[in-house]
Amino acid sequence: MRIEYGSLIPAEYARRETLLHVANGYLGVRGSFEEGVPPHLRSVRGAYINGFFDEAAIHYEERLHGFAATQQSMVNLPDVQGIQLTLAGEDFSCFTGSLEHFSQVLDTATGVYIRDITWTSPGGRATRLQFRRLASLVIPQLFLIDLTVEALNWSGPVHIRSTQSGEVRQDSDPEDPRKAAVGRRTLRVDEVTLAGGAAEMLLSTLGSALTLASAVGHQAPAGFSLEAKRESGLVSWTFQGELAQGRPVVLTKYCVFADSRRHPAPKQDAERLLNLAMEQPFAHWASLQKQALNALMAGAKASISGDNVLNTSLSFSMYSLLMSAGRDGVGNISSKGLSGEGYEGHYFWDTEVYMFPFFLLTNPEIARALLMSRARMLPGAKAHAREMGHPQGALYAWRTITGTECSSYFPSGSAQYHINADIAHAFLSFWRVTDDLDFMAGHGLEVLVETARLWLDAGHFSGGQFRIDNVTGPDEYTCIVNNNYYTNKAAQHHLRGVCQLARALQDQGKFHAPERLGLTQEELEQFQEAADRMFLPFDEALGICSQDDSFLGKKRLDLSRIPRENFPLLMHYHPLFLYRHQVLKQADTVLSHFLFEEGEPEEAIRQSYHYYEAITTHDSSLSPCVHAMMAARIGETAKALAYYESVAALDLMDTHKNTADGIHAANMGGCWMGLVYGFAGLRIGENSLRFRPTLPESWQSYRFRFRWRGSLAEAAVDEKGIRFTLLDGPAFALSVDGKQVDIAGPQPV
Amino acid sequence: MRIEYGSLIPAEYARRETLLHVANGYLGVRGSFEEGVPPHLRSVRGAYINGFFDEAAIHYEERLHGFAATQQSMVNLPDVQGIQLTLAGEDFSCFTGSLEHFSQVLDTATGVYIRDITWTSPGGRATRLQFRRLASLVIPQLFLIDLTVEALNWSGPVHIRSTQSGEVRQDSDPEDPRKAAVGRRTLRVDEVTLAGGAAEMLLSTLGSALTLASAVGHQAPAGFSLEAKRESGLVSWTFQGELAQGRPVVLTKYCVFADSRRHPAPKQDAERLLNLAMEQPFAHWASLQKQALNALMAGAKASISGDNVLNTSLSFSMYSLLMSAGRDGVGNISSKGLSGEGYEGHYFWDTEVYMFPFFLLTNPEIARALLMSRARMLPGAKAHAREMGHPQGALYAWRTITGTECSSYFPSGSAQYHINADIAHAFLSFWRVTDDLDFMAGHGLEVLVETARLWLDAGHFSGGQFRIDNVTGPDEYTCIVNNNYYTNKAAQHHLRGVCQLARALQDQGKFHAPERLGLTQEELEQFQEAADRMFLPFDEALGICSQDDSFLGKKRLDLSRIPRENFPLLMHYHPLFLYRHQVLKQADTVLSHFLFEEGEPEEAIRQSYHYYEAITTHDSSLSPCVHAMMAARIGETAKALAYYESVAALDLMDTHKNTADGIHAANMGGCWMGLVYGFAGLRIGENSLRFRPTLPESWQSYRFRFRWRGSLAEAAVDEKGIRFTLLDGPAFALSVDGKQVDIAGPQPV
Repeated sequence: MRIEYGSLIPAEYARRETLLHVANGYLGVRGSFEEGVPPHLRSVRGAYINGFFDEAAIHYEERLHGFAATQQSMVNLPDVQGIQLTLAGEDFSCFTGSLEHFSQVLDTATGVYIRDITWTSPGGRATRLQFRRLASLVIPQLFLIDLTVEALNWSGPVHIRSTQSGEVRQDSDPEDPRKAAVGRRTLRVDEVTLAGGAAEMLLSTLGSALTLASAVGHQAPAGFSLEAKRESGLVSWTFQGELAQGRPVVLTKYCVFADSRRHPAPKQDAERLLNLAMEQPFAHWASLQKQALNALMAGAKASISGDNVLNTSLSFSMYSLLMSAGRDGVGNISSKGLSGEGYEGHYFWDTEVYMFPFFLLTNPEIARALLMSRARMLPGAKAHAREMGHPQGALYAWRTITGTECSSYFPSGSAQYHINADIAHAFLSFWRVTDDLDFMAGHGLEVLVETARLWLDAGHFSGGQFRIDNVTGPDEYTCIVNNNYYTNKAAQHHLRGVCQLARALQDQGKFHAPERLGLTQEELEQFQEAADRMFLPFDEALGICSQDDSFLGKKRLDLSRIPRENFPLLMHYHPLFLYRHQVLKQADTVLSHFLFEEGEPEEAIRQSYHYYEAITTHDSSLSPCVHAMMAARIGETAKALAYYESVAALDLMDTHKNTADGIHAANMGGCWMGLVYGFAGLRIGENSLRFRPTLPESWQSYRFRFRWRGSLAEAAVDEKGIRFTLLDGPAFALSVDGKQVDIAGPQPV
Repeated sequence: MRIEYGSLIPAEYARRETLLHVANGYLGVRGSFEEGVPPHLRSVRGAYINGFFDEAAIHYEERLHGFAATQQSMVNLPDVQGIQLTLAGEDFSCFTGSLEHFSQVLDTATGVYIRDITWTSPGGRATRLQFRRLASLVIPQLFLIDLTVEALNWSGPVHIRSTQSGEVRQDSDPEDPRKAAVGRRTLRVDEVTLAGGAAEMLLSTLGSALTLASAVGHQAPAGFSLEAKRESGLVSWTFQGELAQGRPVVLTKYCVFADSRRHPAPKQDAERLLNLAMEQPFAHWASLQKQALNALMAGAKASISGDNVLNTSLSFSMYSLLMSAGRDGVGNISSKGLSGEGYEGHYFWDTEVYMFPFFLLTNPEIARALLMSRARMLPGAKAHAREMGHPQGALYAWRTITGTECSSYFPSGSAQYHINADIAHAFLSFWRVTDDLDFMAGHGLEVLVETARLWLDAGHFSGGQFRIDNVTGPDEYTCIVNNNYYTNKAAQHHLRGVCQLARALQDQGKFHAPERLGLTQEELEQFQEAADRMFLPFDEALGICSQDDSFLGKKRLDLSRIPRENFPLLMHYHPLFLYRHQVLKQADTVLSHFLFEEGEPEEAIRQSYHYYEAITTHDSSLSPCVHAMMAARIGETAKALAYYESVAALDLMDTHKNTADGIHAANMGGCWMGLVYGFAGLRIGENSLRFRPTLPESWQSYRFRFRWRGSLAEAAVDEKGIRFTLLDGPAFALSVDGKQVDIAGPQPV
């Protein structure tokens, strides 16, 4: 699949920088033009390392106790994208002369982004330029640019100036609450070593005192001279030579980044990796890239037959998720992946609820690395719980890079205690799907127990029920409420899951941890009791689950009377206005019915869906995919398809008008889930997978791969039903519409 | 009554700067030592004009729509306090040599603060220095310092250096949420005119673009030479002469401030007023000061016989209130009066609920000016309502100087919608006490109608009841709740009051405004209906009014288990912790029973008091006085006295440890109210005053004056009962313990 543009549209420039970024889970580089753009054009020229952050104190006009003290931001790395060309005295720019040909193509099968240009200069010289880029899946620290220049109707001198700049700033926009308010420097250049065509820059972050090595080397066109120069934090190399008509020349730029969160000796490692990379030409790395991508996608193939637009979005979503996810147990998945600075590069519950299922069912190794990244944050979560006044347990930060809370507006930040249950849900799902009790004993139990302890302190028994007051559920248009249905249901699942896991570990003789964790049988019984007596608000008159104790008593907002230009509402209404009304930013109770349907009467699920749908704005990109899946769940396939189409369009069509800040990675998870959990109706049961497939009328068929306990299978759905093929591993059973099916080879259902 | 200190205690320095400030409702100057203090000593050297402010944008890490955009701060004026002495070559300082005598005395009967010192220099020279100060009640722009120097055991040269400095900064403390986080400059010196012993400085505020003239002149000791100098924003005058043993010399420093909010031509006015002031010596202005103070206090005399400490605090409170209150319809009463920069000099509901009653019943002219100041803010309140998403009505800013919302944390800021009803209550009380229907027609009705309209939009009818969701009541440890009892009760009183006023105006042919206000009979009926159907949560099982819909279902905080050093809780617990528990910062339902007791069963008042008292921390200085009054109300006189003693001690004993930042003006209002509303049980009825007097066992008696519709009376309470004396004006009736009493001259009850 290819993301392809055939003309230059300045207004789309920053959006395409996002969509055409190259990444590999460690490193991401936005698809900026190497030669730059005119200053008036909105451009977020950036490159990022997953989890490489700076930090600064948060200023509050009125700071109350326990407010998040420190902001963390994913650092905009030194700019190594710069390559300017002067062709027979004329500076190349897409914004002068004329473009006879212009294309930008990202191929998700090769992992290479290519910009191909035929440019006629103001002086009439026609030149072909091709820029190819990749962020290597084999050496994650490596970013490559390969430039080919061919004079089509002239011969003459050419200057190629390649740069590496440590003088970079963060992106900013004080008008947009979703982005940092103040652009600032986060890096200081400590040392520059320049040796011919290569240089190594050593930098440190100003607030977090991390270090970074940025090494750049070149494979220059034969016969070209080189002049290298350093001015303060900027290194430039000027290659000069003669271009003969019809005889292309090639410059390859090798860029390596190594950060101190992964590298004890970033400088030495960057140097070593640069040397390793430079032993081979671009074609070599491109070839390995394709192989690596193929291997990564082996478990994740999926396609829709009958709708090319949706199929493209599905492929792009899977590809982007794979490129966004940290695999080293340090990096997680930023809400914008590695494609931009929106939300400061923070990790949210987006990972566990919206993206983790894709990895869990297609790449369990990455799923495990994501869980390890959360396990690594547990000390931060314990500290955060203390800040929030809990003498015991752990509370994961609502938004963070290292585990420290970075949300400066706690009513829709730290108050979202459900993140604990969301993370627990991911750990418990991992256990179900992989049956990896060793991992659960070694890492899962501690996370599950510490987060479960928080519920006991946050909630309380009253009138025979366990109640959780003053939290915020997923819907950020309703904050700080009592007994949010989603939160209570998720906590119930969490508390029960810990007890189940403890029993399973006991049965298998793997329950090693109790002393270290101080976990007693008595505490497990408290967990069980809180779960069993969990209060789940239900409105008898409406026959629906109530979003919280008071939601259904509020004034209902008639969305049809809100002017279209006032969406998203958060940009036009004070939070109190939103809190006062029955109006949702995003799926809340409906999401709980997606994640925790056990025990819910069908009628309550159906009626809740209809009630909340009418007052949901989907102002959050986390919402339409849930409605797609739940519309499919209740048999409204046409409506599910309509939601699914909006999911597919979000970034590719920039329907939220902020793709320039980065992809909506959770929505991409939702795109995959919309197919697999939505139309195919997959759910993870305690000991098997369940399916409940439907097929939208306009589709011919769809298929997808998934893994279950060491096996790889493919499901294919068409008008005749669902067929499963075992591609690898032992036979296993699953259920379709409640009937058991054994998967042992190609077989129809 | 005198506030008197007989020794220098460095740790008390900043607190005394507050307590010994001189002010007159327009201008306030903190009681700093003219000669300065060592740099390590905490000092807030400041002077302020009521309502003279600078403004700056508020920075938010995540700014949501409608968040207050601009911070306003009362400006620290040019420092004119500076007077340094060099006595025979030795610099005078209270921190060198030895103090044979040191006293600081503020006399509330004269309005003059005197610092009297006998100082022996390190070289053995004994000198008496007396500094006298006043902020004139006759020329509010005038601040005077009068210095007398007498050599006791020596003769020789003396240098007196007097300064005027425009190079000033705001006080700040980033660690204290109750104060500005960043100290900054707010003034720029635009022009300095120096002519001999006088200078005029013209300044402008950096953000709000207001202008200020500061003029200083001197009456120098006879025979002294003068050298005047200007360096940038600092003017200094050095007076040199010979001091003969036993022959005191006197320097008088005249300082005038005129600001552009009151003076179209500040420069000319400052010059004119300085010339006027300098025509007379200090003694003249001190004599006028005493007369003016006497006139101001005529309606406000009150005393307690049998407890000198309480009597002192009562006198000091009344005096401080009179010195703090704006009288020009521009300035209101800052929560710290004119004594410091705490809370940025903002006006809160403190004025209407805690301080207005004192003025209303003792100085109705000042009460009217305070209401005019609110009427002047009505456009700001309308704009604020729009920001908060209300298409109609006005919502007064929670904290402000000009009417613009300055609260950067809306859950305990703008969400306190009850401020509308609090202000309405003040207007309606003014009507009851003065019967001034012309004022109500001209100014009151518009304020009352616009603020009432907000309730109709903020609330809604549901299940036959009028409900108000998502507001914060007075208790800031419980934020954003549904149907806060106080708010609903206050709104009910407000809505009914508008309807009553409209009828009264109609009856008197003074209902001129309806067209301009767009006020229809139909809208008045809506007000009435909302009031009549107001939902007032009541817990049948406990027999108490419920603070809000969900308060009584929360976890109860056992205050006895909180370590003493963790108070005030807001400094040690995250807001969510506080919100999640049954714990109060301050009186909430109990306050509503104080203000709106009509229709409440005695039993509900009593039981609510006991229930909430057990979980109230009184972490707010607005709380103990309410509990004092309500303890008296339910007959618990001993407990009332205990609370009253804590009210009396707050600033004089610095029990909140922040008197250095300014007086707690509302608590001072509470001190007066504690006597009059508390022990004497005064309440304002629709057509008369009601009393329900009690006498604490340890007191002999107490007495106080009050005004009612043009009459001035005195009440005296002793063990025999209450006696009233008509001092001025026509006879009138009131009630004591439900029995009518006619006041026509001195008579016992």
